[in-house]
Parts: sequence; structure tokens; C-alpha cells
Amino acid sequence: MNNAIEKLAKLFARFPGIGDRQSKRFVYFLLHQNSDYLEDIKRAIGELKKLVRQCESCFVYFESDGQKLCEVCRDPKTNLESILVVEKDSDYESIRRSRTYKGRYFVLGGLVPIVEKEVEKVIRLRELKRTVEERSGEGLKEVILALSITPQGEHSDGYLRQALRDIAEKNNIKISSFGRGLSTGTEIEYSDNETLRNALENRQ
Amino acid sequence: MNNAIEKLAKLFARFPGIGDRQSKRFVYFLLHQNSDYLEDIKRAIGELKKLVRQCESCFVYFESDGQKLCEVCRDPKTNLESILVVEKDSDYESIRRSRTYKGRYFVLGGLVPIVEKEVEKVIRLRELKRTVEERSGEGLKEVILALSITPQGEHSDGYLRQALRDIAEKNNIKISSFGRGLSTGTEIEYSDNETLRNALENRQ
Amino acid sequence: MNNAIEKLAKLFARFPGIGDRQSKRFVYFLLHQNSDYLEDIKRAIGELKKLVRQCESCFVYFESDGQKLCEVCRDPKTNLESILVVEKDSDYESIRRSRTYKGRYFVLGGLVPIVEKEVEKVIRLRELKRTVEERSGEGLKEVILALSITPQGEHSDGYLRQALRDIAEKNNIKISSFGRGLSTGTEIEYSDNETLRNALENRQ
Amino acid sequence: MNNAIEKLAKLFARFPGIGDRQSKRFVYFLLHQNSDYLEDIKRAIGELKKLVRQCESCFVYFESDGQKLCEVCRDPKTNLESILVVEKDSDYESIRRSRTYKGRYFVLGGLVPIVEKEVEKVIRLRELKRTVEERSGEGLKEVILALSITPQGEHSDGYLRQALRDIAEKNNIKISSFGRGLSTGTEIEYSDNETLRNALENRQ
Repeated sequence: MNNAIEKLAKLFARFPGIGDRQSKRFVYFLLHQNSDYLEDIKRAIGELKKLVRQCESCFVYFESDGQKLCEVCRDPKTNLESILVVEKDSDYESIRRSRTYKGRYFVLGGLVPIVEKEVEKVIRLRELKRTVEERSGEGLKEVILALSITPQGEHSDGYLRQALRDIAEKNNIKISSFGRGLSTGTEIEYSDNETLRNALENRQ
Repeated sequence: MNNAIEKLAKLFARFPGIGDRQSKRFVYFLLHQNSDYLEDIKRAIGELKKLVRQCESCFVYFESDGQKLCEVCRDPKTNLESILVVEKDSDYESIRRSRTYKGRYFVLGGLVPIVEKEVEKVIRLRELKRTVEERSGEGLKEVILALSITPQGEHSDGYLRQALRDIAEKNNIKISSFGRGLSTGTEIEYSDNETLRNALENRQ
Repeated sequence: MNNAIEKLAKLFARFPGIGDRQSKRFVYFLLHQNSDYLEDIKRAIGELKKLVRQCESCFVYFESDGQKLCEVCRDPKTNLESILVVEKDSDYESIRRSRTYKGRYFVLGGLVPIVEKEVEKVIRLRELKRTVEERSGEGLKEVILALSITPQGEHSDGYLRQALRDIAEKNNIKISSFGRGLSTGTEIEYSDNETLRNALENRQ
Repeated sequence: MNNAIEKLAKLFARFPGIGDRQSKRFVYFLLHQNSDYLEDIKRAIGELKKLVRQCESCFVYFESDGQKLCEVCRDPKTNLESILVVEKDSDYESIRRSRTYKGRYFVLGGLVPIVEKEVEKVIRLRELKRTVEERSGEGLKEVILALSITPQGEHSDGYLRQALRDIAEKNNIKISSFGRGLSTGTEIEYSDNETLRNALENRQ
């Protein structure tokens, strides 16, 4: 009956992790806000696609003043010897925030489904191969796979190593994966065998 | 650095129950959607304040074609003998969805803080009193308080009973509260004394 | 390999809610305790079946100095007009702790499975019928069913009302059930229809 | 009033992770079991301290037929080149279950509290030093610290490295710690900076 409320609630219900109840709450929340805030949101949503674009090289979203390459890809101080491959933008952000890596990135745009024939429709495999090939002439020495340790993440890691093998060998590029071991908060007692095995092997 | 992304993320971070991470996810989610969806959201937010208003009688939000009263308040079949008082719109919705009550409503707009001098700034007490007074001429016989069984909800229940007492007595109106007892899912073993006492007293 | 540790861990793993890990922890915990504590546990387990027996009338477990009836059943101050029927001892305890009920009890020993032919093998139905019949001569006027509001609890409630109907009618005994409504902590917004319906009907 | 029930419940309430309610449930559970099971538990508790003792070398609990050393310490196939230091027996078990390590162990008996003067009252530091010293003559080349990645675990790791430094240098023994990185289930997006830094450094 309340079409305007229901309609907006339905749109919010498509947001990741938001169910019917919370989407309704968002609408009631907005009803209680002043018009300025609502205008700000509308404007910010409107500007999103105008100002933000995907980097033509690494495919991360960035705010562009006309540039086709993101800040990292443009920065002359970026180390060209490695590309770090992540699944998605939020992984990219997480690693940038850690200020631990100085090289280039590549956003895959997804993980390889465990049962999947046409992988290139799901992740940017062709683009990754081309990027590796091209950059091998610019000093690229290592492709670092930084994927989550989930069944699909591990499957993707194996898949990419296989898919990149020929290019890597031909160009003398190393393929590595993020190291495994104890992460912050891990307790020995509750660790799985795989994690313990890696923690032992990677002891230092 | 990504002002457009950060700006929208900050606006989303004010949504109820949404932290910094999830607000960022919302933005990335939007970046992956097509323009139609973004336009739909912008339009729906824009229409919200235009189409939705508060009922002048019960203060619920409703979609208005110019009417000043909500559907329930306008409906000639609505039973005029009772007003059911709720804290907020989502409580109202929950009760309407249960199709169990046929009378009028009143949305308080909040609960009475346990330490609070100026209650009328926090809830619609003056409006409630006036409504009860006015409706007593239209056949009103009962005010039903339907507040959550939380410390603040119970405090508000007691406060309202006190605040409405004189008007109720003068106009021969009964004040009642939603019954207490075992709710769906309650296990005897884990019930508190208060709930058990009520369940015993209200046995039937 | 550690048979003594494994053996005790396996016995503890049968405790309600205890898995393999926690049962092992119990054993390590005991290994770290002094011998007095271990002796105390052994003695207390040994005394359990010697000192504790089931009341012949209401079937609750109680510590007996030779008596066949529990404290409540022996107490001349216990109100004989009602019997409160609970599923299990911990429900009984919960209600006694609330100090809200002054009559007799009856421990069913279980709930009626939703698909079940031979109910008398699962709960003390025969004993309950006999008890109601006998007590009708001692002033019994009401059987109060105090079962959890779970699918099986509600099914049992209906089943018992049916099973006791004839005896109750013949002896002019009322059958009632614990009242339903809002329990402590319940929020209107998140309440199911059934609870709201009961809360409205049982308003007071 | 039910002393036997209360007494046993109180003893169970000291079990790790067990509150008042669950300890009571344990007692009711036991009341419903047959006498054989109760006798089995009593016997198993009685045998615990008779059959199980701490290994004189590594301090793990094991079932002894008179031996003073546990299975691992007695086994001629055990690799003498390393000692793996764990906090407690359940950590030891977790690592043994992973079948990934072939050397000796040492159970510290606790972690070093962050504010603590007399560490030797809390963990087996003196025993560890003596063991390292003695074993250096038997081919010991590495002490591996396998502590949880918690504030106290990391503090203990640093503390032990410091405390063992002189003995290690004198005897040409390496001190290492379990490697850090992504553990099973870790998602890049939600990883802390420290874990990402380690995962990058330990890439392979």
C-alpha cells in the first residue's frame, strides 16, 4: 500500500547482506532525516559513475579527472617488478591499507568457480595474461597471488598458476602465493592440520 | 583519495546498523550495477519525502495522494473504540501484519528515557493526550499500550499510564497493556521469574 | 594410546551439550586438580543414586531420607487445588525458583513427539491420568499445563488437553495452559503474529 | 534442599566453560543414566591419576605402565634435532594429530603473563632451559616456538626468545617460531595488517 516506501525498501534489499527488515529500516531512517542528507546521497550516487572508473591497467575502481590509469599505475615510484593479483576491490583496499606492498596490482573481478567451463566470463583471465605478457618487457619478475584461503580461493590459486605457467616460464617470471601460517588470533589448539603444517614449514 | 567513493561510503555509514566496511561494500556494489538501478534508487529517494507524509492523526508514515490521514484513520471500518499506542513505525507494521487488531493506532515516536525531565521533547505525549481527549467523544473506550518488554519500554508503559490517568478517568476510558506470558520459542527452563509469574497469572 | 584419558573423555562426551574437544578439556582439567577434588566428585556421583530418588507422586527427583514423597508433596501447606504439569526437572526448578506457584507439580518426563503412536512409552501419561483421578477426591480443581512454546511443546499441550478431557469433565476439573504474550526482552518489531495476537487478547 | 544434587552440580560448575545451569543439567543427565555408566565414570576418574603421569622430559600427560617418559620421548625414531614448545596438552594434541612434525616436544604449562615478575612460577622456564642445555649434547639444533597468536602468546614468544638466547648461542641452536600468514578460512578483505604483511613476506 505504501508504494514509495516499499519501492525504496525493495531497492535497498538488493544491497549485499541486507534483508527485508533492514531495508525497511533504512527507509524509515531516511524518512527521519532532513532533506539535505537525502540530497547528498542522491548527488553522491549520481556522481559515482561519472567520477569513478576502472583503471585500464589493473581494473581497480578509482576517481578519475580524465586519467585512464589509477594512482598506483600512474605513480613512477611504483615498483614494476611484481603484480599482486586480488579477487576484488575490497581486497585491494585491505592490502593498500596495510602499507606493506609497493608494486602493482591486478583485480581479477571474481574467483574461479569450482565447476566452470568458461572461466574467462567470470574472471579477467585474458586481461591478466596480456598484462603479464606486456609487463614482462617492463621488468616484471613476479606475479603474487593474494586470494582468500577458502575452497574457491584455493581452487582459483591452483587454476591461475596453471593458466599462467607458459607465459611465466617463457618470460622468466616467478609465480608466488601469499604465505600460509598462523594469522592474528589463531590458537594452536583450534587450528586445522593444513594451517599447522604450513606454520611449521614457514617457521622463522 | 577516492573522494566520490569515500563520500558515498560515509553517507551510507550513517544508516542504522552499518559500519565502515559494509558502507564501502555498498559503494562497490553500486559501482557494479547498471545505471538504471542507480537511477531507480535516486528517484525513489527523491520521491520519498514528496509522496510520504505523517498521518495528522496517528503520526504513522504513509503514501499520500494529498490526504492528511493514513489509510487506517480514513477507513470507515476502523473500530473507533480503541487506540493502540506503539513506539515506532516498524512496531506498527509488525502489528498490522499480524491482522489481529482492527482499531486505531498512535505512533509515539520514541520511548521515555529512564532519566528525563522533558518527556514531551522525546515522545508525542501532548499529541497523545489531545487525541485521547478528542476521540473520547467518538466512542473511544480503551487505550492499549503495546511497548517492548525492555527496561525503557516498561518504564514508558508506567509513565504513560500515569500521564493518561486523569483524562482516562474523566472520560471513562480503560488503559491496558499488551499481555505478558510465554512468547513463541520461549522455553520454561530458561524463563525469568517475571515471565513465569505472568504466564501463570494469564493462564487460560 | 592414552587409554585412561580417552576413556574418560568418551564418557564425558555423552554429557548433554559436550563435544569431543570439551570432553578432552574436562579430562585435562581434572589432571590438573588435586586428589581431594577428584575424590569429592567420585563420592558425589556415588551418592547421587543412593540419596536421590523420584517422588512417587509427582516424579521429581529429590533427596530422600527414606521418604517416598518430595518436599512439595509432603508439605501440608501445599495447595491441593491445582497440579502444574512440566516436561522435566529443570522446568520444575525454574518455576519453583520464581516463587509464584503454591500448588502441586507433575513431571511428565518428556514431550509428545509429533509423530508417535505409543505416547505412554515416552511420557507419564498413564501416571498423570491416575494422579488427576485420585486427586480429584482431594480437592483438585485445575490442571495447569506449563510446556515450552516450541512445536513439540505446543503439540504436547494439545495432546494432553485431549487425553485428559474425559477425566477432567467427569470430575469437574479445569485444564489450563500457561498464558502467552510478550515475555521479558520481547520487542514488538520482531514478534511473530501468534505472540502479538496473544499479547493483544491477554492485554490487561 | 537437594544437597546431593546441589553438591555435585557445584563440583561440575568448576569444569572449564560450565556454568550453573549446565552443571545442573549434567546432574539430571546422570540421574537418568543407569548405574553402569555412573560406575564407569567413577572408575575412570579414579584411574586417571593412577594411570596418567607427566613425562619427566617433555611434561606431557601420558598413560604410563611404569615408564617415566612419554611415547614420543621414548620412541627411537623421534628426531632429536628439534624441540617444539607448546603452551598446553591440547596444543600438543592438535599438532600431533596433524602428523606434520617428527621431533620432540616440550609443554610449557602456561603462557607468560604480560605483567609478571616471577615467570618461573607460571611456566616451566627453568625446566625448558635445562632441557635445551642437556639436549644440545644429543644433537639438538632448533627450538621451535608454537604459541597462539594472541597478545599473551606473542608476548611469551618474545620472552622465550630472550630467555633462551644465551643458551642457544652458546650451543649453536636456532630459535624459530611458527610461521605467520593466511590460515585456513582467512579472507584477504578482513585480514589485519600484520597478517597481510606476514603473508606477503612468507609468500612462496
